[in-house]
Formats: sequence, structure tokens, C-alpha cells
Amino acid sequence: MKQLFIGGEGTLGIITAAALKLFPRPKKLEAAFVGLPDPHAALKLFTLAKAEAGPVLTGFEIMPRVGVEFCLKHLEGARDPLEGEHAWYVLMELSSGSDAFPVRDLLESILGTAFEEGLVEDAAFAQNLTQVQDFWHIRHGMSEVQKPEGGSIKHDVSVPVASIPRFLDEAMAAVESFVPGCRPVPFGHIGDGNIHFNVSQPVGADKEAYLARWDEMNAIVHGIVAGYGGSISAEHGIGRLKRDLLSDVKSDIEMDLMRRIKTAFDQKGLLNPGRIL
Amino acid sequence: MKQLFIGGEGTLGIITAAALKLFPRPKKLEAAFVGLPDPHAALKLFTLAKAEAGPVLTGFEIMPRVGVEFCLKHLEGARDPLEGEHAWYVLMELSSGSDAFPVRDLLESILGTAFEEGLVEDAAFAQNLTQVQDFWHIRHGMSEVQKPEGGSIKHDVSVPVASIPRFLDEAMAAVESFVPGCRPVPFGHIGDGNIHFNVSQPVGADKEAYLARWDEMNAIVHGIVAGYGGSISAEHGIGRLKRDLLSDVKSDIEMDLMRRIKTAFDQKGLLNPGRIL
Repeated sequence: MKQLFIGGEGTLGIITAAALKLFPRPKKLEAAFVGLPDPHAALKLFTLAKAEAGPVLTGFEIMPRVGVEFCLKHLEGARDPLEGEHAWYVLMELSSGSDAFPVRDLLESILGTAFEEGLVEDAAFAQNLTQVQDFWHIRHGMSEVQKPEGGSIKHDVSVPVASIPRFLDEAMAAVESFVPGCRPVPFGHIGDGNIHFNVSQPVGADKEAYLARWDEMNAIVHGIVAGYGGSISAEHGIGRLKRDLLSDVKSDIEMDLMRRIKTAFDQKGLLNPGRIL
Repeated sequence: MKQLFIGGEGTLGIITAAALKLFPRPKKLEAAFVGLPDPHAALKLFTLAKAEAGPVLTGFEIMPRVGVEFCLKHLEGARDPLEGEHAWYVLMELSSGSDAFPVRDLLESILGTAFEEGLVEDAAFAQNLTQVQDFWHIRHGMSEVQKPEGGSIKHDVSVPVASIPRFLDEAMAAVESFVPGCRPVPFGHIGDGNIHFNVSQPVGADKEAYLARWDEMNAIVHGIVAGYGGSISAEHGIGRLKRDLLSDVKSDIEMDLMRRIKTAFDQKGLLNPGRIL
């Protein structure tokens, strides 16, 4: 029943207590900032890293060049970890709660293999925890730095991990065709298929006119997501913003079951009304 | 919603398809059969192993001497992995999907530390996969070998991991006081708090007369489980056998919510009737 409340957004009940399972703080933490030609190479690198490092692989974030450029322009303290320019980047983190694992050796070995296989163009290894934080600073700044670049139409979507590169190819081509000159900045967690597919307005375009096309662009991207069996709300829930989209992606039976569960918990409709359903 | 169906025992719907997440087959697998003085030492060894090996720790099963003796008597191909006798045993397994981990070194290092700290009396390391299977053969035989020893009153319970040793002390003393001469054979997974608390009849006792005390002994053990905030059905569900016990351990509000969810999915009561509720 716990799982129903996770993602229930307060519509089924009020969580008044929680028991947390704790994991030891990592004793060893290593990260690399990797330049790659395209998301297909990033997926192959992910598959390799997952096979070699298993649960020790604790971060694998993809970012496009344009996102890194936005960071270099607008994010305090950001600098390019690599000398040359690359079309795509991956921030890869390995960590272990145990001293016994050769975490750094493993990271170097994985990237060495990836380099030999032509997946990776260049990589910078963090030499200390400050540099690890510098790498994450760029990743965490990725959303904020889109603001000074004008309007951004956002999608919080997921597709099966194996479909991420094809989804990105297709969705980027579709939005660039819909609004010529727009700048897709997709980024996020390859490991769980969760991509923040944000699209910045064309340089010099009118912000209001661009944002007025939000629903139309959403419909295009969500249509592609549906083709891959993905989700239109990977991480941030349904809330009010996506409430009207939910019935487009869920079957009548699913919608009916969700309403019946809602009624079972909240017959009078008192709990967070207006959200999800 | 998937989580509702897991453990729903067919009372909420019929699962017609499932998508499975696959993990790589372990490339390295190591196991040790460890002799210890008591469950308190076993818990300390578990805490140490979890901190050092993290997700590489893939098995940690506790067994009492009497269970191993039953195996030596009744289980084909079973032999004692250790020379001396120990009051309790742990089967500890480490495995990794990657070649990069020093799995054997790690297992030896953990048990070396445990030996220095006085937690462990003796340990046998499996020298090959056949010996790993021999160790598991004993653990997997633990339930079956109770049959030739007469009646066994069973409990499938869980308590918080940190409470396992105190629960075992208390529950074993309680059943031995309730039926003098009975032989508790608790075994199972320390890592998730799940103990199969089986109690074999006293030697030479009347089997039917012993099994007639099933409900009374259950009530005693479940009462102790409740005191530790545990569960009376850790692994095997509620089904028909424990249906009448459920309302003893769940509040009226919980029972009411479960009934309302059942009704939301199955208004006519067609799905696996008579189970759980």
C-alpha cells in the first residue's frame, strides 16, 4: 500500500510518518566528464559500465553541447572540463561504501575500453572531491541556465533505456522541424530512461509567442514517447499541469481503476482536490 | 499500481503480462560456511559484511546447529562443512557481475576481521562452485529434513533486522517453555529480517497432539513478533491459512482500506474468493 501513496501526490491520504532504510555514505567516489559523438555512443558506454561496475555505477547523466555552453555563459564557477568541443557529454560517477573496491581503476578501465571501441572522444577524471562537485555543478545547473536564453518548453519523459538514442534523434528532429531554430537541451538519467527534454526558444524569437506553442510541442513529443511505450511524467508527477494529458496516455480502464482507488480512500474528495484526476 | 498486484494473491486482478528487469549473471561467486556462538554474533557479522561488501553481499542465511544435524541425518549428500560443532551457522555469499572485484579477497578480509573481533568461531570457504552448491544444499534442505523428525509448527515471520537476535532469544525461550523439549529450527535471511521460525516436536512426542497446539504456539510467537513491529507473513502471503489472523495484526482502518481496495477492483467478489479478506 506504501507504493500507492508514493506518487499519490496527497490525493489518497496524508503521510504522517516514514521509516527510512539507510545506506552507508560512500567511502570512495570517482567521476569522469566524458565527450562523445552522439547518444548512441552514450548508451553503449552505459551498457559497458553497467556490466562492469554493476551497483557501483551511481551516476550516468547525459547532456548536449548546447547545455554545457549555456552553463559556461550563465553559471557561476562553471568551466569546461574538456579542452575540445563534443556534441554530447556524459557525467559518469562510480562510488562504493567499501574501501575494498578499486573504484578508480574500474572507472579508468571502463573508459579505456570505451576509447578503444571508439565510443568516447575524450574524458576528464576528477582528481578530488572538489572536481567531482564541479562536474555535478554543470549537470545541476542545466535547467537554470536555460532561463537567460529565453523561453523553454519542458517535457519530463521516460522511454525504455534501449530506446533513448532513437527517441532523442526523432524528438529533436521533430521539434526542430516544428519550430525552426529552437534549441533542444535534453539531459538526464540514462540509467532509468528519464530524460528532461527541454527546448529553448530560437535566438531572438519572441518569448511569449514561443511559449504559446507549449501544448502543441508537448503533443508532438508525447506522441513520440507513446510510440516507444514511455511515460509523459517520469519524475515530477501529474499534479495540475499534466492532469488534462493523463487521459490521453492512459486507457479508459486504467483511468476508471484510478478513480475507483481514489474514491476508496477519499469518498468525499477532500484530499488535495484537483490533482491527477 | 503494480505493487498492489504483487502480494494481491489474485484477489485484485489477473496478471496477464510482465516486463522483467534483468541483471547480468554473476561472473564471480564466493561462499563461506561460518560457525558462530549465537545470533547476536551473526547480526554483527552481517553489519560488518554489509558495510564492507554492500550490494556484493548476495546471501546471508542463519541456521541453528539442530537444523544442520537434521540435514546430516536425513539429507542425501549433506556433510558438515566444519570440523567442530557450533551453536549457530551462517551461509554467506558474495557475488559480482563484474570481473573487476576482488570478491574472494573481500570475503576473506571480512571473515578475518570478524575472527579478530571474536564474532566467528570457524569458517570454511567454498573452493569451487560445487562446494558453493553443497553449502546451499544444506540451507535449502532445512525445511524438508524436519519432516522425518515428526511434527513441525511453522511461522513465516519478519522483524526489523536489528531485532533478530533478541526476537530469537525471546521466541525460542517462549516456545520451549510452552512445549518443553520442543526443538526450534529458526532459519532464513538475516538481511531482510525474514525468519522461518519452525519448531519441531519433542523427541518421542505424539505428532497429532503436538500439532494440535499449532494455533496456541502461533499466537505466542506472533505476539512476540508484534512487540518488535514485525510481520506474521514475511514471504508466503496470507492466503487462506492466515486469513483469520490478519485482523489480529492489522488495525480496523487498515482492514477497512484493504476491503475498499478489493471492492474497487472486484465489485462482484469474483477474483480468488476466500483469500486474504
